[in-house]
Amino acid sequence: MKIDVLTLFPEMFAPLDHSIVGRAKGLGQVDIGFTNFRDFSTNKHHKVDDYPYGGGAGMLLTPQPIFDAFASLDANRPRVIVTTPTGRPFTQQIAEEWAGEGHLVFLCGHYEGFDQRIHDELATDEVSIGDFVLTGGELAAMVMIDATVRLLPDVLGAQASHEDDSFSTGLLEYPHYTRPADFRGLKVPDVLLSGNHARIEAWRREQSLLKTYERRPDLLEAAELTERDKIFLESLRD
Amino acid sequence: MKIDVLTLFPEMFAPLDHSIVGRAKGLGQVDIGFTNFRDFSTNKHHKVDDYPYGGGAGMLLTPQPIFDAFASLDANRPRVIVTTPTGRPFTQQIAEEWAGEGHLVFLCGHYEGFDQRIHDELATDEVSIGDFVLTGGELAAMVMIDATVRLLPDVLGAQASHEDDSFSTGLLEYPHYTRPADFRGLKVPDVLLSGNHARIEAWRREQSLLKTYERRPDLLEAAELTERDKIFLESLRD
Repeated sequence: MKIDVLTLFPEMFAPLDHSIVGRAKGLGQVDIGFTNFRDFSTNKHHKVDDYPYGGGAGMLLTPQPIFDAFASLDANRPRVIVTTPTGRPFTQQIAEEWAGEGHLVFLCGHYEGFDQRIHDELATDEVSIGDFVLTGGELAAMVMIDATVRLLPDVLGAQASHEDDSFSTGLLEYPHYTRPADFRGLKVPDVLLSGNHARIEAWRREQSLLKTYERRPDLLEAAELTERDKIFLESLRD
Repeated sequence: MKIDVLTLFPEMFAPLDHSIVGRAKGLGQVDIGFTNFRDFSTNKHHKVDDYPYGGGAGMLLTPQPIFDAFASLDANRPRVIVTTPTGRPFTQQIAEEWAGEGHLVFLCGHYEGFDQRIHDELATDEVSIGDFVLTGGELAAMVMIDATVRLLPDVLGAQASHEDDSFSTGLLEYPHYTRPADFRGLKVPDVLLSGNHARIEAWRREQSLLKTYERRPDLLEAAELTERDKIFLESLRD
């Protein structure tokens, strides 16, 4: 997979080298390029922003540098993603969809955001990482890149797994415990020490259902539930 | 405000220096400390992870290094935040609430996550940045720190503003335009060039309502709407 990031702050992306993305690069599964669109500004002071028409606080990113930086990419029908609080919410499903793409381009806004013509003409996807506001699009792009790249073949390796992740089953993940079995009086549930795999599986499933029921009942609507799951959920409601 | 971050990868937090958080530090509005809990491991190889009880892929973070790193903080009833996909969704409201706190502590998980006793005993808040899975909690913590710190007094300064942000009005933000009025044939809406501020305000409000109606109708339930807003929304439904 090829990823291009258009940003005023390429140096902000250093964390990707520490994350799983560094591993994916090493494996040749992803190639990430950064383009500072300030370099494409035709303004003699390399200005990239200007005041909003109609008044209001803050500065907007003007179309010219971004249109020209985008045109400079070696791109054949890429997904062009703008991270914006007004986009559709980013989900694990979108990460899975993007993991199957050949080329992703991220346009990172800053200040008050982009001139609308950048959204209208360049973006194929306007995506939000949540109902909150960030200083810029860089952190949002890093989050989306991390979530997507870890799903590429071989990237997680044998050390980890995404099959049991929250959301991959449609439910929140069950609690995990490791050694010691007794840490300063805090104990691991007996069932996990029992060696009885059927009981352990059943306990984990119930814990997943319980946590989802308590914290994110909205997820239960879409989750695939067995008859046994439904009986357990019914018992919680009583 | 004091922020402490417990993480295995303090160097991942470099982007915060480029973001608004750097400005807030300069203004003395926030002081961020990083603690690598690997330094607190009593294991002779400084191990911090171990296999999960009951089987399963991946490694878990063991309690001892994190409990001891946490105990080393100069902390008096801080908010202790664990970033986890199983937490309640992070929102602008939570950022506003945290911006009023004196001390935030972020515990950043990695690998398959924390031993459950860390959640149970140390966390006051389990928060998710969305329905997707990341390699670690670091990017999620940076997102939450950025969203919170930009709300501290004086941090955004006169250059920008958070009063018109998406979500601060309960609606998605209206489109923004800047110069040139005609960019390669793509034009700014006439109303924004009219100089008629009442018309501009009305257009912006309608654009906010329209975008929210199309993309995030769920937000309309909780938004404060005028009679005029309601009539406009009614006209969209027809």
